[in-house]
Amino acid sequence: MPEFFKVITPQQVFDALAGFSRLTFEQINLEHALGRVLGLDVVSGDDLPPQARSTMDGYAVRAADTFGASDAIPALLTTVGRIAMGTLPDMIIAPGQAAEIPTGGFLPEGADAVVMVEYTNHLADGEIEVTRPVTKGDNVLDRAADVTLGETVLRAGMRLRPQDAGMLAGLGVTEVTVFKKPRVAIISTGDEIIPATQRPSPGQIRDINSHAIRALVETVGALPIPYGIVRDEPDTLRSALLSALDMADVVVVSGGSSVGERDHIVAVVSGFPQAEVYAHGVAISPGKPTLLAKVNDKPVFGLPGHPVSATVVAQVFLLPCLKHLEGEKLTREPAGQRVSAVLATSVHSPHGREEYIRVKLEQEQDRLLARPVFGKSGMMSTLVKADGFFVVPIHTEGVADGETVDVYLF
Amino acid sequence: MPEFFKVITPQQVFDALAGFSRLTFEQINLEHALGRVLGLDVVSGDDLPPQARSTMDGYAVRAADTFGASDAIPALLTTVGRIAMGTLPDMIIAPGQAAEIPTGGFLPEGADAVVMVEYTNHLADGEIEVTRPVTKGDNVLDRAADVTLGETVLRAGMRLRPQDAGMLAGLGVTEVTVFKKPRVAIISTGDEIIPATQRPSPGQIRDINSHAIRALVETVGALPIPYGIVRDEPDTLRSALLSALDMADVVVVSGGSSVGERDHIVAVVSGFPQAEVYAHGVAISPGKPTLLAKVNDKPVFGLPGHPVSATVVAQVFLLPCLKHLEGEKLTREPAGQRVSAVLATSVHSPHGREEYIRVKLEQEQDRLLARPVFGKSGMMSTLVKADGFFVVPIHTEGVADGETVDVYLF
Repeated sequence: MPEFFKVITPQQVFDALAGFSRLTFEQINLEHALGRVLGLDVVSGDDLPPQARSTMDGYAVRAADTFGASDAIPALLTTVGRIAMGTLPDMIIAPGQAAEIPTGGFLPEGADAVVMVEYTNHLADGEIEVTRPVTKGDNVLDRAADVTLGETVLRAGMRLRPQDAGMLAGLGVTEVTVFKKPRVAIISTGDEIIPATQRPSPGQIRDINSHAIRALVETVGALPIPYGIVRDEPDTLRSALLSALDMADVVVVSGGSSVGERDHIVAVVSGFPQAEVYAHGVAISPGKPTLLAKVNDKPVFGLPGHPVSATVVAQVFLLPCLKHLEGEKLTREPAGQRVSAVLATSVHSPHGREEYIRVKLEQEQDRLLARPVFGKSGMMSTLVKADGFFVVPIHTEGVADGETVDVYLF
Repeated sequence: MPEFFKVITPQQVFDALAGFSRLTFEQINLEHALGRVLGLDVVSGDDLPPQARSTMDGYAVRAADTFGASDAIPALLTTVGRIAMGTLPDMIIAPGQAAEIPTGGFLPEGADAVVMVEYTNHLADGEIEVTRPVTKGDNVLDRAADVTLGETVLRAGMRLRPQDAGMLAGLGVTEVTVFKKPRVAIISTGDEIIPATQRPSPGQIRDINSHAIRALVETVGALPIPYGIVRDEPDTLRSALLSALDMADVVVVSGGSSVGERDHIVAVVSGFPQAEVYAHGVAISPGKPTLLAKVNDKPVFGLPGHPVSATVVAQVFLLPCLKHLEGEKLTREPAGQRVSAVLATSVHSPHGREEYIRVKLEQEQDRLLARPVFGKSGMMSTLVKADGFFVVPIHTEGVADGETVDVYLF
């Protein structure tokens, strides 16, 4: 049985991933913008607000008219109307005058501040008392205070959040230029693997990887293209891969779990014209038998057959790759959020490989404990029981209990 | 201008939300399971693995045959074939015998351990040397080691992650019982508001809230039903609300930003038969003018017109409500991930209201700094520039710089 020919480090994997080109742009409606990555900077074509607006319910005044006002000696002002929403006010506030203004109302000419309604008393029709002074700009959102015409408001390469969608709407950007979603062909191999819909005969196992990888791909907004189970035979594999390379931007093959099957995939991938194989294996655990290649300028991942290994490798390498193709900055940070936690049990890890330790998080008074979930890499239940994982670096032999680790949440 | 009639605390909001019934179940295909909330516990109908499997490439042996084996004095075994994938092996391993086995291969009868290929030497055909001893169970995943028949593997109320989808596939659960997605009607009001597709005339403002709230709703897997902009007039509002209550599980009205408009919404909502108004305002900032009511047993949220306030209130109350309706545990924890950070600048907050301070996160050597993004609540740019927010509790007057705060990420 042959050994791995070319085992590289995780850093070398990322160096290879950085060489793949980003996808091209497409225009989408703002309604579909959530989670998409901006292709171009968004520059405002307007001042927001376009004119000064009130931030309170009250009266638009000239601040100078309220100087020294108090409960004992209120300022007396003449009201000249009420500001309506939806039009610019047509009145002009002269010295000694005020106009009723709702929150969000546009300031009339002459006014430079708003007195909150709480600090006014309504006297006879057309007269109010002001019991607190305001200074120029009080309770007013100045023209362009939010956004200035010509300002770069959102940057290319950012993944759009709800408030960014709101901002785009505010700027009138209802067609958004974003990176295309990567299409990811997902192939399972392995002679023991059957579709999850079928009842396994003795010696057979249901296909887990297609489903776990499909869902992982969805978490970063990419489009899975399920190819199902492909028989572990060179010609069949080759034609499935050819079709996948034609249909998709990225090809992911998981399995086979045996050395012979892995060799088929390596041989088939290497056999494509201008294929470049970066790795037959990666110095990580779980997940060492990971293939990474470039065919037709597209990344091809060969993931281990073990579901736990396949899932971890997909999270650690495939998802950052997809985010890179989608236009985000390539980073070694695994996908998903990160929390700090105190390791509950010491963990040993062989020098020379990066290890991903699954942990369950437990709140213990003020601190968050990370308790390792041990179990062989064939055990999907270890991933289901875990809340995330932390990384033991490649040149470290372990982490002692009580140390703080960064846990990447699933 | 009237004051708020009934201002309640955030805790009272959650007490009211807890009274709403969860949605009913639906059956979906496993392919759509990511992010859905399980309606029923999933109990395994199988042992996984169904029989003992090898976790390594090597030889299936009787452990007793390898006792004392070393490089100097290897154990000599006779090979009786190779385990094929996909069928149960038909050979029986007798004392002194071994069978070649791939990773994932099912153990043949008689064998109780696997020797890794690295610790074997292939001699003449049909003979191997074993240079390290193994004990019973080494490199073997026992029957049911991952999942036991009858075991509850996934619990009702959990939101399904990629590995959970993988587990469901492994168990053959390809139709999944989940809570329905809440349908959320989204209405904007305000006479100054125009669709984002239009060019504002003087005094007009583009509709931000519909888009920000729509996207927020999508982050928890709920289904937005956009109603667009409804004129701020009681009869029009009433008929829009009636239609929304008919079509949706939750109704969200944002605006108007003025007291008069707010009154229309309160009056219309209160006027429905058997309507119960829990709050005309909530002791929070931003977001005090928040209406919460029950009409036809459905939650009706009246959010402030200011986009920042509306977005914050949606994150703090609407999203937990949607997650509750979807079957997750109701928690005061805002939606989204949480990180700990050190506050960079002291923040003062009036006693008697819960305050949400937007912050930008900055990595400074070993620590994460949370730098407040100040700005009036009409400024959407404060939300765009921020990475998250932290909460100043209701009975606290502020947080000093250098203190650690929990930041909820957008």
